[in-house]
Amino acid sequence: MFHAASAQKYVDASTLTIIGRTCPMEGHPYYRVDTTRYRFDNATIRHYCGYPAGVAVLFTTDSRRIEARWTTAPRSYGWNMTPVLQRGMDLYVRENGVWTMAGAARPGLQDRHASTIVEHMDGQPKECMLYLPAWSELLTLEIGVDEGASVTPLESPYKHRVIVFGSSVTHGASASRPGMTYPARMSRMTGIEFVNLGYSGNCMLQPEFARLLAETDADAFLFDAFSNPSPKMIRERLDAFVATLVKAHPDKPLIFMQTHWHTAGNLDQEAAKFHRERIDTADGMMRRLAKQYDNVYFLDGEWFFGRDAEGTIDCDHGSDLGYDRMISERLPRIRKILRKYGIR
Amino acid sequence: MFHAASAQKYVDASTLTIIGRTCPMEGHPYYRVDTTRYRFDNATIRHYCGYPAGVAVLFTTDSRRIEARWTTAPRSYGWNMTPVLQRGMDLYVRENGVWTMAGAARPGLQDRHASTIVEHMDGQPKECMLYLPAWSELLTLEIGVDEGASVTPLESPYKHRVIVFGSSVTHGASASRPGMTYPARMSRMTGIEFVNLGYSGNCMLQPEFARLLAETDADAFLFDAFSNPSPKMIRERLDAFVATLVKAHPDKPLIFMQTHWHTAGNLDQEAAKFHRERIDTADGMMRRLAKQYDNVYFLDGEWFFGRDAEGTIDCDHGSDLGYDRMISERLPRIRKILRKYGIR
Repeated sequence: MFHAASAQKYVDASTLTIIGRTCPMEGHPYYRVDTTRYRFDNATIRHYCGYPAGVAVLFTTDSRRIEARWTTAPRSYGWNMTPVLQRGMDLYVRENGVWTMAGAARPGLQDRHASTIVEHMDGQPKECMLYLPAWSELLTLEIGVDEGASVTPLESPYKHRVIVFGSSVTHGASASRPGMTYPARMSRMTGIEFVNLGYSGNCMLQPEFARLLAETDADAFLFDAFSNPSPKMIRERLDAFVATLVKAHPDKPLIFMQTHWHTAGNLDQEAAKFHRERIDTADGMMRRLAKQYDNVYFLDGEWFFGRDAEGTIDCDHGSDLGYDRMISERLPRIRKILRKYGIR
Repeated sequence: MFHAASAQKYVDASTLTIIGRTCPMEGHPYYRVDTTRYRFDNATIRHYCGYPAGVAVLFTTDSRRIEARWTTAPRSYGWNMTPVLQRGMDLYVRENGVWTMAGAARPGLQDRHASTIVEHMDGQPKECMLYLPAWSELLTLEIGVDEGASVTPLESPYKHRVIVFGSSVTHGASASRPGMTYPARMSRMTGIEFVNLGYSGNCMLQPEFARLLAETDADAFLFDAFSNPSPKMIRERLDAFVATLVKAHPDKPLIFMQTHWHTAGNLDQEAAKFHRERIDTADGMMRRLAKQYDNVYFLDGEWFFGRDAEGTIDCDHGSDLGYDRMISERLPRIRKILRKYGIR
């Protein structure tokens, strides 16, 4: 059931500017990746192609009130995620060049939702960026405004585009809301678009993903590629994965990030052994590959969520605090590389 | 339905050490406050007395695996909270004097839960602190361990006790998990017990709360008292509230914190007016009261969640990032006052 809402006019969001899609799909405006073009065997990966993590709708409106009504496909709740991250949204407004949070679109417990996001504004035109649900397929979305208000597409503020391919950490578990995933935050902070291609638990250096990334145009690629594969998978797949990417994008920076230490490994001896082997495997191979290829980079170090075990929700996935620490540690190193390629 | 669990022995947690209760209640080991002694008219306040926000179970075990099975009373999900904050738990283990997160107790979607928290440990005795659900009544809790393992009460590590009375911010919305509320984090950081007496949305300087706090023994009191009442309530109730507390605890520090700026007020002109009036009212009255009473202190400033609007989940409630910023700004000022009273 829709919540009560008092907007007088609704605009289909698919008619506005949509950013953050890697490979848009006809008829599915909020999909990140076209599942007819990339036919993943794994059903979870196919679902995730449709989840608009990192996708945002851009528009300008002079309405005093902004609402949303939307529908999501059924899916279960995650114990380590907020409903607003999974199936809600958050709105940013740009003022004096700075994006500031204006409000959240509060999801209901079922699949049809309606929410006032912000009200009592001054009626001057506002540049808006609405981040879509990170962990649900979005079937419909309408923006609600005052009767006489205008709603027009806003041009993307981003000149450069960096694809971030990764695990749940990239996908956004367990940021508090969609706009707090680290690619979204880095985009607002830098003015460079970091496109979210996170596939929670399923980012395993698969050849299908190498093909998708090889065929995707971007100014640079950032990889959180070592959080999901086993050490064995890394040994078997990494060389070919990197070779495919280097061949497709010979002049583009390809930046690989080390995965994070799992706090559970502080006490769980088997977890510690597994994570240590994975980190060491990635470290050794990436140091070799970074030497082998001019445009391949490796950001080493596994402590970016902090050494005090307070940066994750579950010893594994970052909270907003963990991601803030990650950005503080990783972003300066990423920007230093990007600047060498004129990406700033 | 219980999840599969493989512990071989269960211990009733109510037989172990329980900390964080303000006024324990016979027959309800996890209640923060005895609702037969303090009969609040408001049903939400009565419920919250039973929610073990900030309550923790302390024990030592040499088990290689720690599990939990527990039941919570039915309640709805919050759109801006994780299930693990609402009805789950998180475990810390003390090593070399430092508490480190060992694992989360993952709640199910209904009211009966079971979860492995940590496994494959080394079998040496471990000092454990398990934070209980912040937003549900906990009906039963058993700690599961290996067949031959011992489980014994662990003495509280805290000498001094500071009652933190407040709103949802103190209660814990929207920390990622129970151990990440700001009183819990400040306790681990300082070795001083900050007891959580947060009543989300219902901390309005009521006389019943003044009576509860007057009759509660502690070394100091910290107040997040201006996030819920209207400016009118503050004007009508604050003087009497402070006078009652000063009379009951004439030699104890009573530290009042300013409330936070609501980011929604950056755009919502009515919200801005309301929050500005509330902040100004509290500021003016508290400056007077801090002069009037020797042991009454006021921590001014409303920007402790940050000026960049990234510290909250919904323009109002802190995320782990917001609380981290709050602790960085407030805790040094709090400790400076406490040190004057030998509380360290």
